[in-house]
Amino acid sequence: MRLLAIAGGVGGAKLALGLARLLPPDDLRIVVNTGDDETFHGLHVSPDLDTVTYTLAGLSNEEMGWGLAGESFRALEALGRLGADTWFRLGDLDLATHIRRTDLLRQGATLTEATREIASRLGVRHAVVPMSDEPVRTIALTDEGELAFQDYFVRRRCEPRIAGVRLDGAEYAAPSPAFTAALAEADAIVFCPSNPLVSVGPILALPGVRAAIEGFGGPRIGVSPIVGGTAVKGPAANMMAELGEEVSCVGVARRYAGLLDRFVIDAVDAAHADTVAQLGVRPHVANTLMTTEADKVALAREVLALAGGAA
Amino acid sequence: MRLLAIAGGVGGAKLALGLARLLPPDDLRIVVNTGDDETFHGLHVSPDLDTVTYTLAGLSNEEMGWGLAGESFRALEALGRLGADTWFRLGDLDLATHIRRTDLLRQGATLTEATREIASRLGVRHAVVPMSDEPVRTIALTDEGELAFQDYFVRRRCEPRIAGVRLDGAEYAAPSPAFTAALAEADAIVFCPSNPLVSVGPILALPGVRAAIEGFGGPRIGVSPIVGGTAVKGPAANMMAELGEEVSCVGVARRYAGLLDRFVIDAVDAAHADTVAQLGVRPHVANTLMTTEADKVALAREVLALAGGAA
Repeated sequence: MRLLAIAGGVGGAKLALGLARLLPPDDLRIVVNTGDDETFHGLHVSPDLDTVTYTLAGLSNEEMGWGLAGESFRALEALGRLGADTWFRLGDLDLATHIRRTDLLRQGATLTEATREIASRLGVRHAVVPMSDEPVRTIALTDEGELAFQDYFVRRRCEPRIAGVRLDGAEYAAPSPAFTAALAEADAIVFCPSNPLVSVGPILALPGVRAAIEGFGGPRIGVSPIVGGTAVKGPAANMMAELGEEVSCVGVARRYAGLLDRFVIDAVDAAHADTVAQLGVRPHVANTLMTTEADKVALAREVLALAGGAA
Repeated sequence: MRLLAIAGGVGGAKLALGLARLLPPDDLRIVVNTGDDETFHGLHVSPDLDTVTYTLAGLSNEEMGWGLAGESFRALEALGRLGADTWFRLGDLDLATHIRRTDLLRQGATLTEATREIASRLGVRHAVVPMSDEPVRTIALTDEGELAFQDYFVRRRCEPRIAGVRLDGAEYAAPSPAFTAALAEADAIVFCPSNPLVSVGPILALPGVRAAIEGFGGPRIGVSPIVGGTAVKGPAANMMAELGEEVSCVGVARRYAGLLDRFVIDAVDAAHADTVAQLGVRPHVANTLMTTEADKVALAREVLALAGGAA
C-alpha cells in the first residue's frame, strides 16, 4: 500500500517517523509544507523540510524540540558580531544544510532535488517531497501589519494578534512533480497532526490539490494536532483562537470537511467524537501524544489500520 | 603622512599590523589582493582580505597561521556529510564572514563596502580596501593544466609544476574607487612582503596601476618576502623557482624594477645588496622576520623612516 503523508513541522515529522518505521521506502512519500521557507543571510531555509528530514534521519534535537542534536551556534554568534540579525537560531550543523541547499539551488537543482540529495546524504530512505519547487510565502496578517511567517512565529513569538493568513504565490505555484506523482499513485492519504492553517493549508492551496484530495478514491485519514484544546506544539491553537475558530479537534475537522474520511482524535477529546461525526468525518479515538518512538509507531499503526493497509 | 600599503595575505598582514600600530586610521590604507578570491559552497571567500582584516582585528589564529583564533569546523564537517567538497577549510567563525559578505554583495553592496562593514564590525579602524570591486581570478598554469589558485595552492598543495600565472579579468577590472583615491592621495607607497606573483602581481595588473606607481612622486618602499632563499610563508619561493626566476630578494627586486625606490632585504641577505642596487633599487638591510608584534612594529618603523614619515 502506497501512502501519501501530508506534513508540516514537528508533529508531522513525528507521525512520519512512525510511518517510516512501518512502511518500506517505496510505500511512503511525505509531502511537506514550504510556505514558511525563508531566506536568512542569503541562505534558503526550509524549516519543515528539515524538521522532517532530521527526524527521519534520527538527528533531531529532542531537548530543544527543533534543529539538530548536538547543535552549536558559533557561526551565528559570529554573524551577530558582523551585524546580521540572529533572531532565527541557525546552528552550525543546521547552517551546513542551508548552505548546501542554497548552493544546489544556485547550481540549478530544484528544491525537490536538493531535498532528496540532502536527505539521502543523511541516510533518509523514504521520500521527503517539497509541496512545490516554486516559492510560496505564508504571511501572517496581524494587528501590527503583515509579517512573514517566521517573523511572526519566531521573532515576534506569535504576540501580534492574527486576523488571517495569506499564502503568497500559492495560487500559481505548481505542486512539485513528485507531489503530483504521489497523489496519482497513492492508495491512501494521511494528514499528519500539523498546523491546519500554516502547514497543511499551504499544501491544500496549491492549484489542483484540494480538488484531487476531494475526489481521491482511497481512504483519507487525518490526525488532530489539537489535543484537549491546545496544540501539542506550535502556534495552531493560538492562531485558531484569534481567528475565532473553535480550538479543538472539531475546529480542525471543520477545516478538513470534505477532505477526510477518518479523523483520529485523542482519547481526552472522546467527547467531541459525535460533533466530528456530524461534520461528515468518521472519528477514531486513540492516544495521539507521541513522546517516545514507540508512541509514534503505535499511532502510525492505528493510522495504517484505518487506511486498510498492513500494520 | 598618508601611506598606501599593498598587501596579499599573511606576510602583508603582519607588516600592515605594524603600520597600523604606528599610523592613525586616516593615514594608512591597505589595498589587498582579491585575485585568489573563490566561491565555495556559493559563498564569496576573500582569503587575503580576511587575513588582513583578522590580523588587524587581533583575531588571527597564530597556531594555524591562517583563519580565526578559537576556530572550529563543525559546519564544514556537516557540509562534508552532505556531499560538499571540504578541502578548503572554512571554520565556523570564518563561515560567518563569508555568509555575511555574500549576503551584503547579494543586497547590492560592492566588495569595498562589504569589506568595510565587516572590518568595522570587527573593530578594525584602518581602511582595508579590495584592489577591485570586479572579479579577477588568478589561474595557475601547470603541467596538469589550468588550476584556479586555491585549487593549486590549497587542494593540490602546489604540487603541480607551474609554468605561469594568468590573471583572468585583470585587464578589465577597474581598481576600486577607494584604491584609486588612495593612489591619488598617498604620500608614500609600501609593497608589503607578499607574494610578488600572485599577491602583488594582480594588483599591479589592474588598468593604470603599474603606470601610476611608476609615475608616483613620493617614496616607494618594498619589503622582500623572500628571506635566505625561501619564502617566509606561502608558495612564492616554489613558484619563482619553477618559473626559472632567482629565488632571492634579487629575483623579487627584478620583478619590482621601476616600481620601487627602496627595497628592504633581510640581514641574512645583506650580500645581495649590491645586486639589488644594480637593478636601480636602493637596498636597505633590516631584520624582516615578524614573529612578535614588536617585530612587526619595528619593521614598520624602519619602513616609515625610509618613507620619510614620522616613526
